Amino acid sequence: MTSTRRDFSRFLGASIALSGFPSPAFQTQEERKVRYCIVGLGRISLGHFMPACKMSQRSQVIALVSGHRDKAEKTATEYNVPAKNIYSYQNYDEIGDNKDIDAVYIALPNSMHAEYTIRAANAGKHVLCEKPMATTVRDAQNMIGACRAANKKLMIAYRCQYEPTNVHAIQLVRDGKLGKVQAIESANGFNIKAGEWRLDKKLAGGGPLMDVGIYSLNACRYLTGEDPEHLEGYTSIIDDDGRFTSVEENVSWTMKFPSGIVASCNTTYGADMSGFYRVHGSQGTLELEPAFSYEGIQMKAKLQNESFIEDSEQGKDPSQFVTEADYMAGCILDNKEPKTNGEEGLKDMKFMEQIYKSAGIKMS
Amino acid sequence: MTSTRRDFSRFLGASIALSGFPSPAFQTQEERKVRYCIVGLGRISLGHFMPACKMSQRSQVIALVSGHRDKAEKTATEYNVPAKNIYSYQNYDEIGDNKDIDAVYIALPNSMHAEYTIRAANAGKHVLCEKPMATTVRDAQNMIGACRAANKKLMIAYRCQYEPTNVHAIQLVRDGKLGKVQAIESANGFNIKAGEWRLDKKLAGGGPLMDVGIYSLNACRYLTGEDPEHLEGYTSIIDDDGRFTSVEENVSWTMKFPSGIVASCNTTYGADMSGFYRVHGSQGTLELEPAFSYEGIQMKAKLQNESFIEDSEQGKDPSQFVTEADYMAGCILDNKEPKTNGEEGLKDMKFMEQIYKSAGIKMS
Repeated sequence: MTSTRRDFSRFLGASIALSGFPSPAFQTQEERKVRYCIVGLGRISLGHFMPACKMSQRSQVIALVSGHRDKAEKTATEYNVPAKNIYSYQNYDEIGDNKDIDAVYIALPNSMHAEYTIRAANAGKHVLCEKPMATTVRDAQNMIGACRAANKKLMIAYRCQYEPTNVHAIQLVRDGKLGKVQAIESANGFNIKAGEWRLDKKLAGGGPLMDVGIYSLNACRYLTGEDPEHLEGYTSIIDDDGRFTSVEENVSWTMKFPSGIVASCNTTYGADMSGFYRVHGSQGTLELEPAFSYEGIQMKAKLQNESFIEDSEQGKDPSQFVTEADYMAGCILDNKEPKTNGEEGLKDMKFMEQIYKSAGIKMS
Repeated sequence: MTSTRRDFSRFLGASIALSGFPSPAFQTQEERKVRYCIVGLGRISLGHFMPACKMSQRSQVIALVSGHRDKAEKTATEYNVPAKNIYSYQNYDEIGDNKDIDAVYIALPNSMHAEYTIRAANAGKHVLCEKPMATTVRDAQNMIGACRAANKKLMIAYRCQYEPTNVHAIQLVRDGKLGKVQAIESANGFNIKAGEWRLDKKLAGGGPLMDVGIYSLNACRYLTGEDPEHLEGYTSIIDDDGRFTSVEENVSWTMKFPSGIVASCNTTYGADMSGFYRVHGSQGTLELEPAFSYEGIQMKAKLQNESFIEDSEQGKDPSQFVTEADYMAGCILDNKEPKTNGEEGLKDMKFMEQIYKSAGIKMS
């Protein structure tokens, strides 16, 4: 059921026809890995994505980009990254001369995604970029254009679209097990600490909607297989403790999809808000909670002839990041367009812009 | 903690000063009951409200109004209602001549609430009316006017505002146990069977929003203690099986309250949708599910220093209806304005009208 298994078998079948992969003669198919340059050594890189590469058979950390040389050297030692493969934000473009690097993984503050994606594409590297893709629609479009012009893959790290329980939920909906879907509720948020770059609109582009509300937005889209035709929302700032001088604290929004499915969502930076969604169909209901976390995802389904609780097939964190990194690796090795490509990321940018606009906020 | 206990002690203290209650000399305080005329012998009357009166020390069924004489006579026998106290919709106004009737309980299709409330007030009877109060704002205003002119109580049967677990949830919010409330999610709906009067806009006024979505709307108001300043929603009809020729099938809406609290809600007639709400505060979260059902209401709370699960203090159905009927009885006996008076019902009418309007639907 996992994407990993399916992609791997496809890779084995198609790999002989591959081109553009460096030095294939020196690797057996089993050994062949996509070699990532990690751009930004923050929490998600150091705590999740890079440990995932250690566990992976298809993904490997080969280079680092950081503004802190000490931190980079320490990390390089742990990951057997040669000193020559440590880059700064200044000499980042030199990755173009480094044939060992296949792709970059961009885990920077949101406002830097566009620049470092475009520079990577210009340097001839594939790009796996964290969500939200960018802080403006224009930037997202430019990222797509740059990767297309360079003939490089661009994947947005929509982890949940590769997570088995979410994938199973999508499948149940597609297979009609819920009958006709009518309505979805979703929420995702947390109580943010002061001092995070996420609270600076210049770096983040927006508040909880762009950071965590995007999970609910994206889930409503992948569950229905539709894009919302109508979106309306409200934003607010309640706490005057100094955190919310730049981005909103709360967002509530409602959407209507072409088939008539409606969805209502919340996100916040001001309270604990366990990530969840509920899908109500004419013949069944399913709920995921937690739906978006790094581990422990659980589905409760009440279908016409069965009710069940399903825990994620995947184990502990960072296994979701293994799946994600390896899916991208498969796209590169098989020359396949990622399911969550730039266009997928761009759509969410446009929808978030509409939600903000309806609430009287200009996105960036 | 229940309203019942508090009201009863108040009643004992204040009863000596009461006026307007018939024949107090013939009853001890313990025996004194408010005697209801039941208007409409449908599911909620026969299955819930009237059995509740049987269990009550303060509420009693004394008369019936029905269009089906046979049904009325059978019911009269069960409730020891004398034959002279069986009315039809034609001779309903004659209740004014019947000193045994203190109040009417109106459980008719929504569009009839206004007429039978106004006729009851004109006949000098207090009114407990099911929700939604009416099918138009104008009707709701006329109901308030008629009851005020007759100096009679008008209570809308917002059962959940008297249900102990909901009351406890409100209290936790008011006491600041959740810190500052930021966001609320709520939903309530069910998969309706063809043929119900609820599917006829002439009788119902609208679809699931007026029937069951009103629980979520009212909950967001009683939890926050605020009225929404902004409301936006979408409606849709997905199923073309003949049920939805007159009212909507789904509604999703979002609200913003003066303090900045946001809320997102769903309702449906096209799917199972367990009634629930979640309140997210800066220092805690609480969830009720089921939140609105006749029994089994449960709260899960995660507060700063404690987490707990609380089941309703009330037992099985129809105990919530006992509380409701007895609360109204207390208002009548103590000459006290009901918490959920006509103005409370009118507010929801106006808010539902706004939600429908935002979705391009004229309420009635």
